[in-house]
Amino acid sequence: METFFTLLEKRVDDCSSLLCVGLDPHVSDLKEPSPASALDFCLTLVRETAPYAAAFKPNAAFFEAFGAEGWAALKQVIEAIREEGARLGSRIPIILDAKRGDIASTAEAYAKSAFENLGVDCITLSPYLGKDSIEPFIQNPEKGVFLLCKTSNAGSMDLQNLLVMPMGSDMPMPLYIYVAKLAEQWNEKNNVGLVVGATHPQIMEMIRAAVPDLWFLSPGVGAQGGELELALKSGLRADGKGMLIPISRGISRAENPKLAAAEIRDHILYIKHQK
Amino acid sequence: METFFTLLEKRVDDCSSLLCVGLDPHVSDLKEPSPASALDFCLTLVRETAPYAAAFKPNAAFFEAFGAEGWAALKQVIEAIREEGARLGSRIPIILDAKRGDIASTAEAYAKSAFENLGVDCITLSPYLGKDSIEPFIQNPEKGVFLLCKTSNAGSMDLQNLLVMPMGSDMPMPLYIYVAKLAEQWNEKNNVGLVVGATHPQIMEMIRAAVPDLWFLSPGVGAQGGELELALKSGLRADGKGMLIPISRGISRAENPKLAAAEIRDHILYIKHQK
Repeated sequence: METFFTLLEKRVDDCSSLLCVGLDPHVSDLKEPSPASALDFCLTLVRETAPYAAAFKPNAAFFEAFGAEGWAALKQVIEAIREEGARLGSRIPIILDAKRGDIASTAEAYAKSAFENLGVDCITLSPYLGKDSIEPFIQNPEKGVFLLCKTSNAGSMDLQNLLVMPMGSDMPMPLYIYVAKLAEQWNEKNNVGLVVGATHPQIMEMIRAAVPDLWFLSPGVGAQGGELELALKSGLRADGKGMLIPISRGISRAENPKLAAAEIRDHILYIKHQK
Repeated sequence: METFFTLLEKRVDDCSSLLCVGLDPHVSDLKEPSPASALDFCLTLVRETAPYAAAFKPNAAFFEAFGAEGWAALKQVIEAIREEGARLGSRIPIILDAKRGDIASTAEAYAKSAFENLGVDCITLSPYLGKDSIEPFIQNPEKGVFLLCKTSNAGSMDLQNLLVMPMGSDMPMPLYIYVAKLAEQWNEKNNVGLVVGATHPQIMEMIRAAVPDLWFLSPGVGAQGGELELALKSGLRADGKGMLIPISRGISRAENPKLAAAEIRDHILYIKHQK
């Protein structure tokens, strides 16, 4: 049976890459503050980097900031990724970075928005509302989610590092480990992964030990100070997969984004083989 | 200084109401599954219920499900609320129910989307990413947030009820109390409230005891099984304010939404005075 992660692994094999190209049309990076410019920014990145992208990750916020026209641009970006994949003969998974999380009837509408209206393959979600808020997104095994577990920002300390006492246990554990274990339980259809920031390699190592099989989406390399080598050594699965490294500004701000993507892809391969 | 909650309290006084009219254009409630029908559904509700609404709460998901056109409809709904408020001579606060939560640079884009592009006054947010994910939304005291604390759904048990051990304390407390206390700390500008579901009145009572001054947004009355009287008795502040009761289907599905809104407003007043 095809599942989100078998589809992702197929693409990872096709392009020998764990690079996830982030599409963050931040207004300060655009030629002008317009949805047309955001679209142009993303289409250029997609065209240049597709051969090296295991996945693309458009960030909903930067499109929403332009209102309805931004939303229309997001849909065009997604269509462009589909075309680029078809041209390369390999479907490139699209992860909508949206960090949604709502009660079930509302979550259904968000799932419809992401999977039907926009047509992405995967979405990032917050776990704070519990399993019924996740279920509408994971019914179809070909659609996937990455649940926020330990995020890359400094504020992630505030809640995610809390020691929690699970019911029926007297062993406290950090909330991020508890969330990782929940995700493992919820991963019945091979379509639930975790967001684990590359800025906390020791924590990533602990989470990897707790859930040896789950895929991680690990932002924070580059702009946020995370180190690629350390992250890969802490988070890769035994099979050399299980991690997507999203890079946005490190590629979009490079003089030659195509070359930057190729180099990151190769650098990941080199580190993997050293491991 | 005007703050989000002084503005809300002004409106509460103007209309003697704690009712927050939810605008959830769920596809099953529309004449046809189109953005035009969603817009029509909301405009009718706004026109009929504005005199009794302390606030309006459009739910982003049901608009997003229609893509760019849905987003355009959302903006028109917001403009219609502004016009209705002007006609009534009283600004009606608008709370975007969006439950966003992302790292700071992305949170800035979401704040821009909500407060500048759409022009709402307040947004619901997830606390999972910590303080730096909330800050971009609370810089301006006239704009407010309601942080998810204890949500109305069954899955809220999964994380929110966990016992946590705060650093430097050996007294475990439920995560929802910890979040409530954080919100109290972050409420330096009188613009941070909490989402506390009406479906758990005993928990609401505990949260009210922990944070006597914060505003609650308390969904779950009616469709989700929460009882209005019990909720008000558990959550109202000593001054008879401090709670907004969002109702969506209980009004939109009523034979006469205007009458339903008036009755709920009056019922809340009656219970308040009994208390």
